[in-house]
Amino acid sequence: MTISHDLNVKLTGNHYIAGQLSAASSETFTSVNPRTKEAGAVAFHNATPGEINDAVTAATAAFEQIRAFPAAKLADFLDAVAAEIEALGDVLLETADMETGLGLPRLTGERGRTTGQLRAFASLLREGSYVEAIIDTALPDRQPAPRPDIRRMLVPLGPVGVFSASNFPFAFAVAGGDTASAFAAGCPVIVKAHPGHPATSELFAQAITQAVEKQGFPAGMFSLLQGNEVSVGQNLVKHPGVKAIGFTGSLRAGRAIYDAAAARQEPIPVYAEMGSINPIVILPGALEARGEALAEGLVGSVTLGSGQFCTNPGLVMLVKGESANAFIGHVKAQMQAKAPGVLLNEHIEQGLAQTVKKTMARPSVKKLIGGEVIEEGSYCYQHTLLQTTSADFRHDAQLQTEHFGPVTMFVLCDSLEDLQATIASLHGQLTATIHAEDSDIKAAAPVLSLLREKAGRLLWNGFPTGVEVVYSMQHGGPYPATTAPGTTSVGMTAIKRFLRPVAYQNIPESLLPDALKSANPLGILRIINNEYTREALYTN
Amino acid sequence: MTISHDLNVKLTGNHYIAGQLSAASSETFTSVNPRTKEAGAVAFHNATPGEINDAVTAATAAFEQIRAFPAAKLADFLDAVAAEIEALGDVLLETADMETGLGLPRLTGERGRTTGQLRAFASLLREGSYVEAIIDTALPDRQPAPRPDIRRMLVPLGPVGVFSASNFPFAFAVAGGDTASAFAAGCPVIVKAHPGHPATSELFAQAITQAVEKQGFPAGMFSLLQGNEVSVGQNLVKHPGVKAIGFTGSLRAGRAIYDAAAARQEPIPVYAEMGSINPIVILPGALEARGEALAEGLVGSVTLGSGQFCTNPGLVMLVKGESANAFIGHVKAQMQAKAPGVLLNEHIEQGLAQTVKKTMARPSVKKLIGGEVIEEGSYCYQHTLLQTTSADFRHDAQLQTEHFGPVTMFVLCDSLEDLQATIASLHGQLTATIHAEDSDIKAAAPVLSLLREKAGRLLWNGFPTGVEVVYSMQHGGPYPATTAPGTTSVGMTAIKRFLRPVAYQNIPESLLPDALKSANPLGILRIINNEYTREALYTN
Repeated sequence: MTISHDLNVKLTGNHYIAGQLSAASSETFTSVNPRTKEAGAVAFHNATPGEINDAVTAATAAFEQIRAFPAAKLADFLDAVAAEIEALGDVLLETADMETGLGLPRLTGERGRTTGQLRAFASLLREGSYVEAIIDTALPDRQPAPRPDIRRMLVPLGPVGVFSASNFPFAFAVAGGDTASAFAAGCPVIVKAHPGHPATSELFAQAITQAVEKQGFPAGMFSLLQGNEVSVGQNLVKHPGVKAIGFTGSLRAGRAIYDAAAARQEPIPVYAEMGSINPIVILPGALEARGEALAEGLVGSVTLGSGQFCTNPGLVMLVKGESANAFIGHVKAQMQAKAPGVLLNEHIEQGLAQTVKKTMARPSVKKLIGGEVIEEGSYCYQHTLLQTTSADFRHDAQLQTEHFGPVTMFVLCDSLEDLQATIASLHGQLTATIHAEDSDIKAAAPVLSLLREKAGRLLWNGFPTGVEVVYSMQHGGPYPATTAPGTTSVGMTAIKRFLRPVAYQNIPESLLPDALKSANPLGILRIINNEYTREALYTN
Repeated sequence: MTISHDLNVKLTGNHYIAGQLSAASSETFTSVNPRTKEAGAVAFHNATPGEINDAVTAATAAFEQIRAFPAAKLADFLDAVAAEIEALGDVLLETADMETGLGLPRLTGERGRTTGQLRAFASLLREGSYVEAIIDTALPDRQPAPRPDIRRMLVPLGPVGVFSASNFPFAFAVAGGDTASAFAAGCPVIVKAHPGHPATSELFAQAITQAVEKQGFPAGMFSLLQGNEVSVGQNLVKHPGVKAIGFTGSLRAGRAIYDAAAARQEPIPVYAEMGSINPIVILPGALEARGEALAEGLVGSVTLGSGQFCTNPGLVMLVKGESANAFIGHVKAQMQAKAPGVLLNEHIEQGLAQTVKKTMARPSVKKLIGGEVIEEGSYCYQHTLLQTTSADFRHDAQLQTEHFGPVTMFVLCDSLEDLQATIASLHGQLTATIHAEDSDIKAAAPVLSLLREKAGRLLWNGFPTGVEVVYSMQHGGPYPATTAPGTTSVGMTAIKRFLRPVAYQNIPESLLPDALKSANPLGILRIINNEYTREALYTN
């Protein structure tokens, strides 16, 4: 099946540069339906350096206007983007399904999450305290010199480049979390679309462009650049007008972007979320009490979305013994009983085949099931289980490679002490999970303490797939999970990535931003002379 | 004068590695009294790779213990460090004066600032809300799936490397703002001392080592490494156990450290504050109303501490005309009337001579006064005034080079519009200042708006030298002022550089950190289900 005729009338294959269509390059590519391996009918163009420059130049000009916009106006814009996405209707779901094979139920849910997070940021802006206003009032009589009045708040960084992900064509893509939080911060966004779903990306560009226009924002607030060449992204990162990068994807691609950004004359922050193997530690009591249910949960999590989640549990750490053997038997049986799903594209299939092959080539690794591409009409890979020992795991960094698909590996430990030593050897992770019963609590405490140093999110008796979009969410973690462990790409605090503090010293009231005015017209929470308060400041 | 005999008995020339003296290398250096150019009596050693590894290994071991310490215990430790610094007595001031020539009054004030900021962080810890606790409670009945309980807080990053600055031997040095904020975050610190004041550094190391011991902290909480070789710092940055870097110094050195950190297998954040030219914009009304007073203020700020401040005003932007000419005349007269002070060391003197020479070589730059080293018994440089035009300034990046000393440059603009265009060409700055009268308010608004994009701190009718240690302070700014414009190195929010968020999902109460427990035993401000509150959380 190719992208349907109905859809084609809406698709141009062009970039959306500050509201204008552009297609300067004759180098084109198409998306491919992963279920049929058939190419889509629409040719998409690789963005040229000139087009990238046009987009960034327009974003820079837009930023000069919008950085004076009140938060409430940004909030209205976010709401409008959400409404325009909904107005795209089912064609969005159908297009994305054809380009990703993720299925309509999953995509319907993901659309709700995407519009939901846009609206959640709108709420955050209307509440207003996210600017972290802090005021220290003057002490005119202080000796030996008076203390000035100093007031600090967060302001936007400037134009942001966003690299969208293949595996979440809505929630981590053109209008996904990076774009939503950058818009919320007051930053124009230039998206480099993922080449796996260019048609879906174009539809989102149409929606955002509509919202920009209807809300009276400058056109440079948003641009979409298509491309399946590495150079497109590199040129975007290297453009001096870009002030920060959001990225979700592979370690290799994320690191290349990080390196390019660090090598600029003006280095810029790269918030790259690069995946993870998301260890699950099952303590002996849990293994004994509910091995079969745990197997069911694990298999559901490993195979969810054909295993194509950043939070896919790729590692299961157990103390060896009869319970462990029985558990592994359950997992094996249940994995084999499930039919493998469709993978997103050929690149994912090939990458998965290569990484698993490399891991299986280690003498320490035992293949339990799977390990092969399924040569069919669609991109597909066998449900795969690998096994190794704790000592081998500790001494071989290759065993910490992410296998992006329905693959997990058991690490059999000799004892609880050995388990702890093995946890200590883990690289940085997005998540880490403990399964435990009451009888395991004593053993769990040091495990939790060790895992805290390794991961951004710690789970108890759950599975890491499924990232709630809530204020408290931390979707991040130490390298190589991300390049910026101090930040998150999901949840309300994601906005902080695109803000920086500015202090105003003795600036007259009339020139202060509303957030810092003495009367507190926004009614936000502020820290005044070391106390949290929503009160107005009355100076003597 | 050499370091006095009295002092020598206290000084070993050794590194302080987790409470142990060490001096493995035979490569040594001494400090030099900048007033006399005479070498100190004590030989200090360059830290070897083995010593660096010892320090980081001890810090890593210490971190495993202290990351479970309550904030109150960290607060007691910070207070103890402050008390031990005070207990060093006058020998600290005298030693620093001999090594830096900064004078006892200035150093006495800087000591108060240094102990004051340690105690201010202690207060921040005791209040406790700096961990930014956020809780979203479970929604067990949500469809299609229940929402888990998620609780997020900030936790320490791990061992921090701190590079101390030459120009603030107390406040930006061994126990300065970087160390204080890293300790406050719960991170062990390894300081690379500045080679300009190794004896002063050793005294601080003694004080901190005492506090570590008396407060029952693990010895690896603190190490001091001496060195005058670039390789010492590079080896510290490259050590995989180091998780973040604080740095204050030159652009060249800061960038080299940033590059080394970015090239690591695991890149780490570098919070480098690298100085700035701190533009001062004097609007026409102010120039006319109080040109002579402004000249006095400017000369005081430019020559303060022999101009060796990161916030030294190195650029003065004016609209040309009679008032500007009169003002420049006043500045010239007052600068010439003042005797140049002592520079910190030969390296500063040579660097200043080279950068000013390079700037003066531009055909667009006119030297008004100064521009030469004063060949005397002490390190010294003439009070120097340069002048250029706005058009030349906009087109020549060399004119934005920092001249680290008693030097400033006038940029003469044709009009207010030309002034705005010139401001738009500025690189990133720590500070930017506007001088204005009521009659200038209309002109000031767009100037302030433009300057906000260029600087971390905006001042009105003041001078940028003098950085208040208050909660609201922002001492940072866009590159090249710093490598991390989203952060500050002064003020309470400096602690955030050394923290990262962790989310706890469905973790049992008994295993939650106090900051996240439902009962809120610390009484801190938290965000619960999107509302700020100090209340306990009562779940149904």
